[in-house]
Amino acid sequence: MDIVEIISKKQSGLELTDSEIGYVVAGYTEGVIPDYQMTAFLMAVYFKGMNDRESTTLTICMRDSGQVLNHERILGYKIDKHSTGGVGDKTTLILGPMAAALGIKFSKMSGRGLGHTGGTIDKLESIPGFRVNLSEEEFYKQVNEIGLAVVAQSGNLAPADKKIYALRDVTSTVASIPLIASSIMSKKLAANDDEIILDVKVGSGAFMKDLDEAEKLARLMVKIGRNAGKKVMAILTNMEQPLGATVGNALEVVESIETLKGKGPADIEALCCSICAYMLMDAKGVKSLDEAYDMARATLHDGSALNKFREFVKAQGGNDEVVDKYSLFQPAQQRIAYKAQSEGYLEKVDALEIGLAAGALGAGRHKLGDDVDHAVGIVVYRKCGDYVKKGDVILEVFSNGVGEVQCFEHLNNAIIIGKERKFKNLILKVIR
Amino acid sequence: MDIVEIISKKQSGLELTDSEIGYVVAGYTEGVIPDYQMTAFLMAVYFKGMNDRESTTLTICMRDSGQVLNHERILGYKIDKHSTGGVGDKTTLILGPMAAALGIKFSKMSGRGLGHTGGTIDKLESIPGFRVNLSEEEFYKQVNEIGLAVVAQSGNLAPADKKIYALRDVTSTVASIPLIASSIMSKKLAANDDEIILDVKVGSGAFMKDLDEAEKLARLMVKIGRNAGKKVMAILTNMEQPLGATVGNALEVVESIETLKGKGPADIEALCCSICAYMLMDAKGVKSLDEAYDMARATLHDGSALNKFREFVKAQGGNDEVVDKYSLFQPAQQRIAYKAQSEGYLEKVDALEIGLAAGALGAGRHKLGDDVDHAVGIVVYRKCGDYVKKGDVILEVFSNGVGEVQCFEHLNNAIIIGKERKFKNLILKVIR
Repeated sequence: MDIVEIISKKQSGLELTDSEIGYVVAGYTEGVIPDYQMTAFLMAVYFKGMNDRESTTLTICMRDSGQVLNHERILGYKIDKHSTGGVGDKTTLILGPMAAALGIKFSKMSGRGLGHTGGTIDKLESIPGFRVNLSEEEFYKQVNEIGLAVVAQSGNLAPADKKIYALRDVTSTVASIPLIASSIMSKKLAANDDEIILDVKVGSGAFMKDLDEAEKLARLMVKIGRNAGKKVMAILTNMEQPLGATVGNALEVVESIETLKGKGPADIEALCCSICAYMLMDAKGVKSLDEAYDMARATLHDGSALNKFREFVKAQGGNDEVVDKYSLFQPAQQRIAYKAQSEGYLEKVDALEIGLAAGALGAGRHKLGDDVDHAVGIVVYRKCGDYVKKGDVILEVFSNGVGEVQCFEHLNNAIIIGKERKFKNLILKVIR
Repeated sequence: MDIVEIISKKQSGLELTDSEIGYVVAGYTEGVIPDYQMTAFLMAVYFKGMNDRESTTLTICMRDSGQVLNHERILGYKIDKHSTGGVGDKTTLILGPMAAALGIKFSKMSGRGLGHTGGTIDKLESIPGFRVNLSEEEFYKQVNEIGLAVVAQSGNLAPADKKIYALRDVTSTVASIPLIASSIMSKKLAANDDEIILDVKVGSGAFMKDLDEAEKLARLMVKIGRNAGKKVMAILTNMEQPLGATVGNALEVVESIETLKGKGPADIEALCCSICAYMLMDAKGVKSLDEAYDMARATLHDGSALNKFREFVKAQGGNDEVVDKYSLFQPAQQRIAYKAQSEGYLEKVDALEIGLAAGALGAGRHKLGDDVDHAVGIVVYRKCGDYVKKGDVILEVFSNGVGEVQCFEHLNNAIIIGKERKFKNLILKVIR
């Protein structure tokens, strides 16, 4: 096969065969196809797209470039939940214990990744002693015993994706729906659970800013997963403002624990209960969504999810006393209030700007290998649609003295106070 | 500046600034921008194009990546004629002596290039002793003394083009009008003559298969040249069938000499006289095209162009006795006739297939550094629109025993005999 002919075919908008796509993925992974030709291919896909079949084939070839986990070693119905990334998204930390408390196997491999704020793995590492690297043996054993494990992604899951993603990042070919979908789904399919629940974030703080585009991405990922023989659903959720009240690693863990105690913010509780309800319908055959929702919610109020969280932290070497004693988390040196400069409705509490504000304090990383400050972040006391008076504390900054000027610049961009009471639903659409 | 932002801007179809384009060309030439990012840029241009200003800037930056010749050292009006490449195109060998005979300075740097048949430089090298590499001193001296020189292109003219072209060739980004135009014009502007005449070939044997696309390319090149302060004209000519009666290096030189003796095929004589007439109007202020045409044609019939050719060959070290004694050219071992298999009009004498047929015999090169067989090629006795009887000789193959089977396969594809007398003009359009 000739890579230049394959590029040229895609440039003309023609459909590629399975063997052509397979040749590109294998050739690039093995180093036979150089970076510049792969770039030409990716840019042709960026402009001309791929249909569902091509996207599925691309995903499966990327999955098969490395190890596919043998999840038959876990007994029971295994669910993986994946979020496309947002600001203040601590869903996994709450949903995992809820699902496990209801007898569902929740096994998740999470990328450390880049971002203004840390990923799930970084958040967990703010718990003293917590280990994110388990051996395969330990991982399977833990999921079988307590129903729940969250570990850092192994290097050998979908290595083709790793290499292709690094190239896309420096050639302006990230923003392509088939390329995004295949990147996410190749890793999910390699993790090989029975069901994949996709939480596609939409809005300023998400990768997808626009609902139509987000829905296209969600539908394509669902299609790819089903073509590959998996049960898949997607939920599109609002990311115009941060999820919950905290942005920053330790702050988000504390908020998760509060939610597991039944004292969390309404938006997070609602989102976790909704997703968990769908899980119950699929895994346990619960017929009514309302009934399932109530069952899910009960785990937050009867202590069963909180107990699961304790078991989970302990199993992965963490100090489970943090659940009752938040002072065990490393504290930030100072707290600075951000106050309303006028009276009115909060029309905007912009997720991206708040994410950037937390990033400026050191909560995330710019490049792989950077250190993350677990203690810093932002607490969001008031959300979109709330009425504030001049001088009311809207946010609080938890700082260790780094990047405060930048942080406040971002916060000034984040907040708009006006006359209209604007409000958007958290759950925008469910695809199942 | 950030190359990823520049790529992204072009992906969105936005216009790039001069400094952005300058950054890309300099960055790539100096190795600061790697191949894969340059590929992403080129592919974005392939899909989104460039306007006249961007194309001009790109061309000028490429010109300025290397030496720009100081043609003030040549006295008089200096014209360069450039053809976009066709089959049987020996125009330079005839037009150069005609122009010089009329007191115009004809100075040409020609690429050796790739192709089914050799380039101008290869054709000249079929003359025993002919030197295509002159020093800059020799080049200027010769043009001043006899009015004419044709040499192989110096390595340091537009090195950015050389590097970019090599990348385009392996990333399917050749077929982009702004990229083709900037590649050609950067070298022409570096050669720095007073006037550039572009012969843009259109049809099966040319790079541009379609008249509309060819006209777009021609108009863009004219615009770029004028924006850069040069006098430029373009002539679009038919390349559905080979030009003249011969395809192959020595065969084409013999045909050129015949034309200089006033005994050449009508199409070549007409094309050379037309281009030369425009030259006379620009260089010598001749007012009427008809008058200029007659002056040009006279050089072919009064021996003045032929004498100039002798001087030219001698000046570059060649044996000028070839003019009277064609047996001094290396002969092919055998001649094989290709006969009409039915009676009717020649509806097609396909230029590309005949070029490929000559290439199969060894007349051209597949990759740089390949040897060219000067003796082999095809003589075309009958052209489109001619009436042939079964058994009439249409073509003759001059072979050295290499690639004959392939050659005849191409010839079978080249010839269509039918009932219609089809005929196209040689000169399709003049842009001046």
